[in-house]
Amino acid sequence: MAAPFPRIALIGMGLIGASISHAARRARADVIVTGFDRDATEAVREADLVILCVPVGAVDAVMREIGAALKSGAVVSDVGSVKGSVVRDGAPHVPAGVHFIPAHPIAGTENSGPEAGFASLFERRWCVLTPVAGTDPEAIAALRRFWEGLGSNVEVMTPEHHDLVLGITSHVPHLIAYTIVNTAAHLERVTDSEVITFSAGGFRDFTRIAGSDPTMWRDVFLNNKEAVLEMLGRFTEDLIHVQRAIRFGDGETLFKLFSDAREIRRGVVKAGQDSGAAQAFYKSRDSADGGRTDSGGAT
Amino acid sequence: MAAPFPRIALIGMGLIGASISHAARRARADVIVTGFDRDATEAVREADLVILCVPVGAVDAVMREIGAALKSGAVVSDVGSVKGSVVRDGAPHVPAGVHFIPAHPIAGTENSGPEAGFASLFERRWCVLTPVAGTDPEAIAALRRFWEGLGSNVEVMTPEHHDLVLGITSHVPHLIAYTIVNTAAHLERVTDSEVITFSAGGFRDFTRIAGSDPTMWRDVFLNNKEAVLEMLGRFTEDLIHVQRAIRFGDGETLFKLFSDAREIRRGVVKAGQDSGAAQAFYKSRDSADGGRTDSGGAT
Repeated sequence: MAAPFPRIALIGMGLIGASISHAARRARADVIVTGFDRDATEAVREADLVILCVPVGAVDAVMREIGAALKSGAVVSDVGSVKGSVVRDGAPHVPAGVHFIPAHPIAGTENSGPEAGFASLFERRWCVLTPVAGTDPEAIAALRRFWEGLGSNVEVMTPEHHDLVLGITSHVPHLIAYTIVNTAAHLERVTDSEVITFSAGGFRDFTRIAGSDPTMWRDVFLNNKEAVLEMLGRFTEDLIHVQRAIRFGDGETLFKLFSDAREIRRGVVKAGQDSGAAQAFYKSRDSADGGRTDSGGAT
Repeated sequence: MAAPFPRIALIGMGLIGASISHAARRARADVIVTGFDRDATEAVREADLVILCVPVGAVDAVMREIGAALKSGAVVSDVGSVKGSVVRDGAPHVPAGVHFIPAHPIAGTENSGPEAGFASLFERRWCVLTPVAGTDPEAIAALRRFWEGLGSNVEVMTPEHHDLVLGITSHVPHLIAYTIVNTAAHLERVTDSEVITFSAGGFRDFTRIAGSDPTMWRDVFLNNKEAVLEMLGRFTEDLIHVQRAIRFGDGETLFKLFSDAREIRRGVVKAGQDSGAAQAFYKSRDSADGGRTDSGGAT
């Protein structure tokens, strides 16, 4: 099958931009990569697909710069973790005849920057497309084929629903991870080095999440404010409920909450979004070289 | 060098008990394993080292059962994640001439039960000993050698300080992970299957922590109440501070908090408590078979 988009322009060159570049070149597309602070306008003139790989807070500025230069019939998309604000900021700058289809590949590592990119980043990962009402179905189908060509599973939903789902599965978890890492750093009776030394007890998984790019995440929270604040409100209620159970020594409530959470974990493993594979890897490597274990549920 | 304890009795056979058994046998010790509901008393009579591998809530009952049978000169220890309550519950049942040295190997996986155990679980992991004042230094040194023989790094601190340090590096992170997993499960506008499908965005790391044993964790929270409640109070304050910054669109505060957290992450990697190894593994496996990436900082 022919590549859905022979000529691709990527604006912005972080982890995601670099990884798309590697993956698309492997699929034999003609890829031009440009910074969004340079002459992005020239890069997009002949492109069949333009993907903004910039923090969501930069979408307005980039679209303002490149909008008029987009080729008729081209698809313009992005990779941002918030979609409502991308529609709000991007759509006004899209000329007639150009298909604007925001997208979010749910893939990444804790490392940022182009040198962290690699071609297989998107394989077996979900990519969510959030076209606005009235978007040409053929353009949507072509973008779907593009992401499937990079190895992703593709799902289509509204920008609003995306922001709600990602609010709980990604944005709030990141905010909590950032927060507790800072809480730990400010304890007078526990030193930073103790926090770091004994991080294998669970804290390590939070620091891993908190290793992500600060600019990208600042923009996420500024642009998905409502969903994040709603989810945070619910989380805080739930946390106070658990806190109260601890204060009053209510072991039954604690046991039930912990058992329920374990069921969800089993669902994640079953859905293939995580697996015994990592555990098995560490275990076999341990046997071989006396290495380390990936904890998670450390004691 | 001779094994510090030729005859070892392990009471309780979960992940940790099974792993100690594998590791100690590999080091050529004579190991007896018994459930704590069976005839543990017989098992401990000839043992030079007795290790309670049970939830901390069971320490009182087990010590009550085996205390009188302990051999003079023996060391009795445990593996619980809380140490103050182990001293409180265990010490009254320790006969004169027996050395009581609570311990906590900070190692584990999200899997529970004896079949999940493996010999290298403790290698390059910390084990904290929390002897009470007046404990025989030679007994402490012997227990240190035992854990070092299993591959651990050993640290000694007071039970109180241990509970404070682990409160923030382990107990509160687990409580938060359990809580947000349940919060996600109760959202009417986001389905369970969506939460699971899109978990690679960060949520997955929380479900991994929340996969741990509910009984063990219930006992941890009931027995480290004060430290956990203090840490939770601080965490909630910090979270509300961040929440307020989001509400008022204060990007500068968010950026600073996220940057600070990333520094701590770098410390964890630098201290060897996590490493590029897991990332590199996933990356190379991806290249080879189009596999998956360990996210953490997913977008």
